[in-house]
Amino acid sequence: MRWTLSPDDLPTAWFNVAPYMPGPLEPPLHPGTREPVGPDDLAPLFPMALISQEMSTTPTIDIPGPVLDVLRLWRPTPLVRATRLEETLGTPARIYYKDESVSPAGSHKPNTAVPQAYYNKAEGIERLATETGAGQWGSALSFASSVFGLECMVYMVRASYEQKPYRRILMETWGGRVVPSPVDDPDHPGSLGSAISDAVRDAAGRKDSHYSLGSVLNHVLLHQTVIGLEAKQQLQLAGERLPDVVIGSCGGGSNLGGISLPFVPDEGVRLLAVEPASCPTLTGGRFEYDFGDTAGLTPLLPMYTLGHDFVPPPIHAGGLRYHGDSPIISALVKAGRMEAVAYPQSKVFEAGLQFARTQGSVPAPETAHAIRAAIDEALAAKERGEERVILFNYSGHGLLDLSAYDDFLHGRLES
Amino acid sequence: MRWTLSPDDLPTAWFNVAPYMPGPLEPPLHPGTREPVGPDDLAPLFPMALISQEMSTTPTIDIPGPVLDVLRLWRPTPLVRATRLEETLGTPARIYYKDESVSPAGSHKPNTAVPQAYYNKAEGIERLATETGAGQWGSALSFASSVFGLECMVYMVRASYEQKPYRRILMETWGGRVVPSPVDDPDHPGSLGSAISDAVRDAAGRKDSHYSLGSVLNHVLLHQTVIGLEAKQQLQLAGERLPDVVIGSCGGGSNLGGISLPFVPDEGVRLLAVEPASCPTLTGGRFEYDFGDTAGLTPLLPMYTLGHDFVPPPIHAGGLRYHGDSPIISALVKAGRMEAVAYPQSKVFEAGLQFARTQGSVPAPETAHAIRAAIDEALAAKERGEERVILFNYSGHGLLDLSAYDDFLHGRLES
Repeated sequence: MRWTLSPDDLPTAWFNVAPYMPGPLEPPLHPGTREPVGPDDLAPLFPMALISQEMSTTPTIDIPGPVLDVLRLWRPTPLVRATRLEETLGTPARIYYKDESVSPAGSHKPNTAVPQAYYNKAEGIERLATETGAGQWGSALSFASSVFGLECMVYMVRASYEQKPYRRILMETWGGRVVPSPVDDPDHPGSLGSAISDAVRDAAGRKDSHYSLGSVLNHVLLHQTVIGLEAKQQLQLAGERLPDVVIGSCGGGSNLGGISLPFVPDEGVRLLAVEPASCPTLTGGRFEYDFGDTAGLTPLLPMYTLGHDFVPPPIHAGGLRYHGDSPIISALVKAGRMEAVAYPQSKVFEAGLQFARTQGSVPAPETAHAIRAAIDEALAAKERGEERVILFNYSGHGLLDLSAYDDFLHGRLES
Repeated sequence: MRWTLSPDDLPTAWFNVAPYMPGPLEPPLHPGTREPVGPDDLAPLFPMALISQEMSTTPTIDIPGPVLDVLRLWRPTPLVRATRLEETLGTPARIYYKDESVSPAGSHKPNTAVPQAYYNKAEGIERLATETGAGQWGSALSFASSVFGLECMVYMVRASYEQKPYRRILMETWGGRVVPSPVDDPDHPGSLGSAISDAVRDAAGRKDSHYSLGSVLNHVLLHQTVIGLEAKQQLQLAGERLPDVVIGSCGGGSNLGGISLPFVPDEGVRLLAVEPASCPTLTGGRFEYDFGDTAGLTPLLPMYTLGHDFVPPPIHAGGLRYHGDSPIISALVKAGRMEAVAYPQSKVFEAGLQFARTQGSVPAPETAHAIRAAIDEALAAKERGEERVILFNYSGHGLLDLSAYDDFLHGRLES
């Protein structure tokens, strides 16, 4: 079963979680002075509209018309009830997922790439620089840049650049320019943290350019809340009550934030972050101020972190290989409003394969983390004979990650 | 702009074009006797339900409930107005496309894979054998087989098997077994015609197995008519009149038939087939009885053909590399009810890239043929100052064909 909405039903305002947080968010600190950063500190990297959203405490923020026009190319996305998966599990739980894989770039990332490109264009910027790991974010920003006529420069983690040509080609198809990072060391395999350093250095050095980040920051999570807002409408349409639990995989926190933040005010609704056991930021990290990148160029953010020099092992879910986490997500976990769980890779791919063979669609490895947790929630409901309502975010498809499934199917996957 | 329908609005009967054809279809002939084949001749390869559909002349055929349940995982598919492409072209034409890329396998192919798997299962068959070129059809049948608990054996053209591992992995993810074809000559690059021979030999030799074909035959085109039926509903919903022209790319004819056959009774509507200049079946072939495969194992079909021993050049649109064509499509072209046009590869990729950079989605090379023709129709409308309504089938996405875009972007594409 599947509930679609008409493009006219797209939410026209984002949901700002700031006024609903358990406490006020601690401010980012200047990397030099360790004083709270102000708008002027961020102005070399971001347009004022985004800086103002980053610090806003108003409960809703209107989505500009030209942004709505582009989002309506694929939004609202479907809400699907995974009846075939439920039957296979023999669970009394009702499992719903929000299908964000239908965007041009195949994930939730364009939800923020489009407004980021729009606001930069509106403030006269001609060029965006960003980093990408496996390539989901870089392809989303390349798409959004092509829509608004911006140049897009992507620093791609060198190991991915060399091993995953399809994502690089996708970015180039939309007109993006892609170079392997780190740019100053052709023998280094690279990391997300060092690619951020490359992109920030690029943007800070040119008047025509800004920097763009695909996760972590408040304004990014804000833009993603269309996911949860639509899901609420669609659950009503389905005659369903509020979910017992809302689940998302968590790297920097953007897809998780997108589906879960609109449920923060709903006290009975559990929120669950799912991360890889090999990069366990929320379940194994410390809550403290840390840099967003390896070189220490970004402001210090209050978050769960494994340390900005942490080098995550090369697991397939590249989008979850980040040493830190969104300050909003971190604060929710710290306050006990959100739970977190970590899974080893083999359990994750097992769930991804079970989903593909029941529901049809092949999930991205990142998404398969959320599926693993949804299945375990459904099995727990079965164990206890509970009628549980489960909602998870199907953040992206795995069509450009099939080599990971190949490794799993042929026993070459490390756990 | 985009028009969605609820799963409840899915058509519950297929449209059978047989009673609306310009004349009766000539029958297939037995490869040995050259006499018309009867149901018993086909029974070793197909279930009776499909054989009966192949020969039916009733105007509609009900879709079984369990088939509807599976189609509703992604159907109805959206109808999209390509306003951003229209603006770029500066055309007064209104361009609509039916987005078949949203299926689990990424194309229109599951529309027939699902009922074929269903009818075979219902008649006690345990295993399906088929061929695949680039892999679109093989992945659709692997998906459908996994849904109904059938084994799926795919003979994949060896050149594709070796060069395009992602499609092979996708089939295996759904539980399909994939072997390179021809099976008896490991040094031969293979062709669609010889892979059909391998699959027919396999199915004919085992009681538990049937053969399954993804295009060409009447029942395949019948199953695809949900595309055109939905499009008619959605055009009404959009307040639009009947299209002036309906366009589809044409290899065996299934996606073209799917969108265009429901418009055959609408006399003012032009129907347009688009094929590659390098495999110009409709525009350069002869209308005569010919075999569907290289080895001459299939019945003889009345169709436009380049000869069953024609070896098409290795163009990127693997789905359009077939020596013959659907008898229904061939008869419509012969009678003048349908037009055909052929394009060289470079013009096709130019159109695919323009589409990706305006509408966002990256089309399959096969689909880009239809886009090329839609753009040329829109430019002709501009030239003449006409308000033309254009509908084309967006038959599949190009995410597993990105290496072809890489070749185009870097000047490595042969025309």
